[in-house]
Amino acid sequence: MAAGFNGATSMASGPTPSFLAVDWGTTRLRASLVEAGGAVIDRTQSDHGVQSVPAGGFPVAFAEACGPWLRDKPGLPVLMAGMVGSRNGWIEAPYASCPSGPADLATRLLPVPDMSNVSIVPGVDCRAPDGAYDVMRGEETQVIGTGVVDGLVCLPGTHSKWVLVQGGRIIRFVTFITGELYAAMTASFVGRLAAEPADMESGHAAGEKIATLGGGLGRLLFQARTQVLGNNMPGAAVKPFLSSLLVGQEIAGAIDLFGKPSSVHLVAAMPQREVYEAALKARGFSVTTTDPADAVLAGLVQLFNAPRG
Amino acid sequence: MAAGFNGATSMASGPTPSFLAVDWGTTRLRASLVEAGGAVIDRTQSDHGVQSVPAGGFPVAFAEACGPWLRDKPGLPVLMAGMVGSRNGWIEAPYASCPSGPADLATRLLPVPDMSNVSIVPGVDCRAPDGAYDVMRGEETQVIGTGVVDGLVCLPGTHSKWVLVQGGRIIRFVTFITGELYAAMTASFVGRLAAEPADMESGHAAGEKIATLGGGLGRLLFQARTQVLGNNMPGAAVKPFLSSLLVGQEIAGAIDLFGKPSSVHLVAAMPQREVYEAALKARGFSVTTTDPADAVLAGLVQLFNAPRG
Repeated sequence: MAAGFNGATSMASGPTPSFLAVDWGTTRLRASLVEAGGAVIDRTQSDHGVQSVPAGGFPVAFAEACGPWLRDKPGLPVLMAGMVGSRNGWIEAPYASCPSGPADLATRLLPVPDMSNVSIVPGVDCRAPDGAYDVMRGEETQVIGTGVVDGLVCLPGTHSKWVLVQGGRIIRFVTFITGELYAAMTASFVGRLAAEPADMESGHAAGEKIATLGGGLGRLLFQARTQVLGNNMPGAAVKPFLSSLLVGQEIAGAIDLFGKPSSVHLVAAMPQREVYEAALKARGFSVTTTDPADAVLAGLVQLFNAPRG
Repeated sequence: MAAGFNGATSMASGPTPSFLAVDWGTTRLRASLVEAGGAVIDRTQSDHGVQSVPAGGFPVAFAEACGPWLRDKPGLPVLMAGMVGSRNGWIEAPYASCPSGPADLATRLLPVPDMSNVSIVPGVDCRAPDGAYDVMRGEETQVIGTGVVDGLVCLPGTHSKWVLVQGGRIIRFVTFITGELYAAMTASFVGRLAAEPADMESGHAAGEKIATLGGGLGRLLFQARTQVLGNNMPGAAVKPFLSSLLVGQEIAGAIDLFGKPSSVHLVAAMPQREVYEAALKARGFSVTTTDPADAVLAGLVQLFNAPRG
């Protein structure tokens, strides 16, 4: 059956679905019709991310995206992950606290009111001993989907997460606002000399070099302007410079907090995948990578099949 | 004679001015009519900062602000500091390089075309051995005006400067984009839970605490949001939290780069003065402070009186 990118299509015949896996984030909804064994029968996606759904509009938005599947199989179990479980989502699913693994999250799946077949995976929060507080929604499902049992998982993004996994459970994690800083700085004074098209090579080389210097990000960001003023790089290098600088400082911060394991498991798609893989390998890590969409689907399958306390 | 805040007033009689000291920055022009000994006879200021003056408009903007004085004393020497010497200013005054002291800068004063009585103080640049490049315009005159001969000078701002002075000369300096980051982050996602009026006490206490944690600014800035989500501080604390966090990280960065002297000389006016003095004292520094307007005036007087190569 063809992928239905403008809404699910009806299945009059074909394989028997076991459940509907939904990744409903801030900007997008992605849904997969899944067989018992985890094979995907059909997929759909929509731009009706959580931020574009009005209060009370979630049942309608969900029916628009997945209605045909549900008409064929009323009562089909639906498992959702992501910002759909936030305060501005369908219903707020209270955070599970670290440490949390698949069994902990499966126990806390939150049914949606009046639709007992639809459940939402709770996010995870982390109160660090040093007083920091961190939250995630959606990434916990991706981490589970990586299959990492013991290791460090890096999930780049607007709010990148670094997650320590032990015995298959999320032990602790931290957030770096790398993507948010990139957006803010390219729109701010220090990014004003940026020119297009980007000179990726010069920018990444300069950013990698400056990222290793002392003084912290508040110092190093100024170099996005002055390296151009001082004729050390062209204006076309400014954006990739900022990218490599911010990613380099994120990795340095993670090493500061987690130590330096020999390998990092990355959950990233292009173009971040390329930037992070290069930066991690340059620092001596071995890197394995999972696509985010694959990770969330695998995580939902695992949570669907997990014993529920 | 009364201060003329809407333009200079004529002086038919009174003390004899020695020169006109002008601090012409991005957003404002401040001018003082100065006696030989440094005493101020009259002051004026205007909102015609460099950014609001069109190309070719500097002679007119200057005449509007200071014309009455110059009609009384044609040919009176005028010494200007600040962004008026930048690429977008009246004329670009090439940077003097570190190390640079009063004699070096006095030798490089740049006369304005067709107005030989008007000179501009060059900015200073610094090529650090680690590859960073830094520039200042205006702060070099303030540093000279502090009278610091050997010490570390901190000049808070959109682009805060930390300046190492030895033997009365600027040896090296670095920039932290603390003010720019504050503006960007209060307008960005992590600052969105900010409420007014600000709860200064809670915000500064929380910011001071988080500023001491590891992982770098990209991690710690997320706490402006999560400390509210986690009920560790109220939304009214977000803005002072960001201020204390950024200032704390700036000071930590400066210590990283310059070591930790027993004292810091601050060039700051309220409200930054209070934030920086508290943060510096909390870290064991003794602090002396000069008002920025006093510092630039004292610096211009010293440069005017310096021997010119």
